[in-house]
Amino acid sequence: MSQDRRQFLKTAAFAAIGSGLALNATLAKESSSLFSINKHTHSGKMKLTFRPYDLKLKHVFTVASYSRTTTPDVQVEIEYDGVTGYGEASMPPYLGESVDSVMTFLKKVNIEQFSDPFQLEDILAYVDGVMPGNTAAKASVDIALHDLVGKLLGAPWYKIWGLDKEKAPSTTFTIGIDTAEVVKEKTLEVAGKFNILKVKLGRENDKEIINAIRSVTQLPIAVDANQGWKDKYQALDMILWLKEQGIVMVEQPMSKTQLDDIAWVTQQSPLPIFADESLQRLGDVAKLKGAFTGINIKLMKCTGMREAWKMVTLGRALGMRIMVGCMTETSCAVSAAAQFSPAVDFADLDGNLLISNDLFKGMEVVKGKITLNDLPGIGIQKL
Amino acid sequence: MSQDRRQFLKTAAFAAIGSGLALNATLAKESSSLFSINKHTHSGKMKLTFRPYDLKLKHVFTVASYSRTTTPDVQVEIEYDGVTGYGEASMPPYLGESVDSVMTFLKKVNIEQFSDPFQLEDILAYVDGVMPGNTAAKASVDIALHDLVGKLLGAPWYKIWGLDKEKAPSTTFTIGIDTAEVVKEKTLEVAGKFNILKVKLGRENDKEIINAIRSVTQLPIAVDANQGWKDKYQALDMILWLKEQGIVMVEQPMSKTQLDDIAWVTQQSPLPIFADESLQRLGDVAKLKGAFTGINIKLMKCTGMREAWKMVTLGRALGMRIMVGCMTETSCAVSAAAQFSPAVDFADLDGNLLISNDLFKGMEVVKGKITLNDLPGIGIQKL
Repeated sequence: MSQDRRQFLKTAAFAAIGSGLALNATLAKESSSLFSINKHTHSGKMKLTFRPYDLKLKHVFTVASYSRTTTPDVQVEIEYDGVTGYGEASMPPYLGESVDSVMTFLKKVNIEQFSDPFQLEDILAYVDGVMPGNTAAKASVDIALHDLVGKLLGAPWYKIWGLDKEKAPSTTFTIGIDTAEVVKEKTLEVAGKFNILKVKLGRENDKEIINAIRSVTQLPIAVDANQGWKDKYQALDMILWLKEQGIVMVEQPMSKTQLDDIAWVTQQSPLPIFADESLQRLGDVAKLKGAFTGINIKLMKCTGMREAWKMVTLGRALGMRIMVGCMTETSCAVSAAAQFSPAVDFADLDGNLLISNDLFKGMEVVKGKITLNDLPGIGIQKL
Repeated sequence: MSQDRRQFLKTAAFAAIGSGLALNATLAKESSSLFSINKHTHSGKMKLTFRPYDLKLKHVFTVASYSRTTTPDVQVEIEYDGVTGYGEASMPPYLGESVDSVMTFLKKVNIEQFSDPFQLEDILAYVDGVMPGNTAAKASVDIALHDLVGKLLGAPWYKIWGLDKEKAPSTTFTIGIDTAEVVKEKTLEVAGKFNILKVKLGRENDKEIINAIRSVTQLPIAVDANQGWKDKYQALDMILWLKEQGIVMVEQPMSKTQLDDIAWVTQQSPLPIFADESLQRLGDVAKLKGAFTGINIKLMKCTGMREAWKMVTLGRALGMRIMVGCMTETSCAVSAAAQFSPAVDFADLDGNLLISNDLFKGMEVVKGKITLNDLPGIGIQKL
């Protein structure tokens, strides 16, 4: 088919939309020839490229076992028919992936074998089967494909998924663990910009930290115990105390190996209890029903947006509450996760706010609330 | 904003796609003004219209309790910005809805309160809450909205859902219950056109019917027992016999009230057992895990495409097999159901083939296989 004819058909179809006519009215007139034409209009191949990119943290990041000032990251692009989809893998060291492992994985991905980026189910099943594990590497491909497909459809994913962007919740902002005095300062610094805070507990000084925050603000607080409480009695005691301090939810009170005890705590708890370390992918969700009130979905752990959206559907169908979280990431992966945030109860999407070398403008936090734009795909533009 | 400016922006955006440039490259240039523009470009209201339409059956339809020559049906349209989405409610009498009940329901639906048809989650939650029950009436609105939204996106739903249309299965074709001689004739008539047959059993002459079919063809057969077998021993005996006759699956062996006994049968059964009467909506799926191998999803029972797709996701996540079924319907509802058929194990989408006054051309059965076209939305055009 000639280039002129392709161009004519595209122009005719788009003009039909532009003038408010149904696209199918145009299509119907020459349907039999058009079906074969459609096969050819997107005959381009997908091209996957990627490069390491060190995320610079604004503040030193400290957890129980170590501190760090950067997060290793790989930036991904999938190009097709002149359109580029952006993706990203972020690899906080404690999750087991690295720049090396992600690059090794992505080199094995033969995306060029697929001629149609819309076939997300098949393409992502193939990517998932390239090697086990490697969930962040898989997520980077998934995100880039979603960005690409959304751009080809001319719509952001929140819209493709049928969601109302006004229903996106406020994001929590994490107050790093430190001395009571520093926690107080940090809280004062951010209390005016956010509607809900998050704090990681599970150490000796839990009450001291909460008291420090409460001495300067009455904002709701989400608590991530990071498996830190030793047994169900300590966990329930803390939760009952936290409830009195205006805490609104608790993540992962105890070790993921203590599922029965967590179930006991959840049954007694006046606060919703969310699974974090206990949860990785779609296959884990049904097993957690009953043990947790809800699940924290993170793209880097669940292989990306397609599986995340299935987890939202499954969790809701099982009567569970839903939370979306992230790693330190650029606005690429954070904006991808934000696309389904109108369907969640809690959002912890502050990862892009923690780095000083973001590459994109995307989802923005306005008066503490996740604010989605109308750009197609995952809603980002290069800075 | 002036009409000229709106038109310019639309043209610019579509030209950008047409020439292979990323849409967001165009958008990015004037993002701040464009966000407010986007709000206005679709300021139209949705308009819902509907009318009764009697489906004329090609052959008298007979089940245990009665015969009929027509199926009551209501045709629905939702118009928005000059684009029309088509939907349909089909009301086989045994399911409890009627032209009256559907018209009464649709009159109560105030769709005009929504300014954005893309907000399917909210709109359909509202529709679901208008009155309990009325699943076919709800499905008619859901289908029309999906057709509309797909047309606005310029893509068919199988594509929006990330599926490969080549993976759509063959549809079963139902051989009506009759004397052995007539069953033989009917089978001969259709055996060359289909790759799998379906027969409704659960009466005295089950073996006679199967033997009649087997005397003229070795095609695989799906059996719908329609709750007809009295107890688990009779059911298992029949299933073991059916397995030997090349039957490939069994629907609803016993009454939906006998769930424990059905679970027993499923455990012993060499054939997959699918829930039909035991299943209505999303909320039923998890309860059937273990009792049945799979579920038969029908738009008229589950309120439409959005909930059906959630049921596919949930069923798969729970390790269940998936089937899609239909009522006697025009190609409107059948094509809507066919959109997710690439994700199912069995399809029973012959409803449009059973009527003589179809209103649409849509999904077609080619050499027995469900064949989806590339028209946007649910893939239909008016005849």
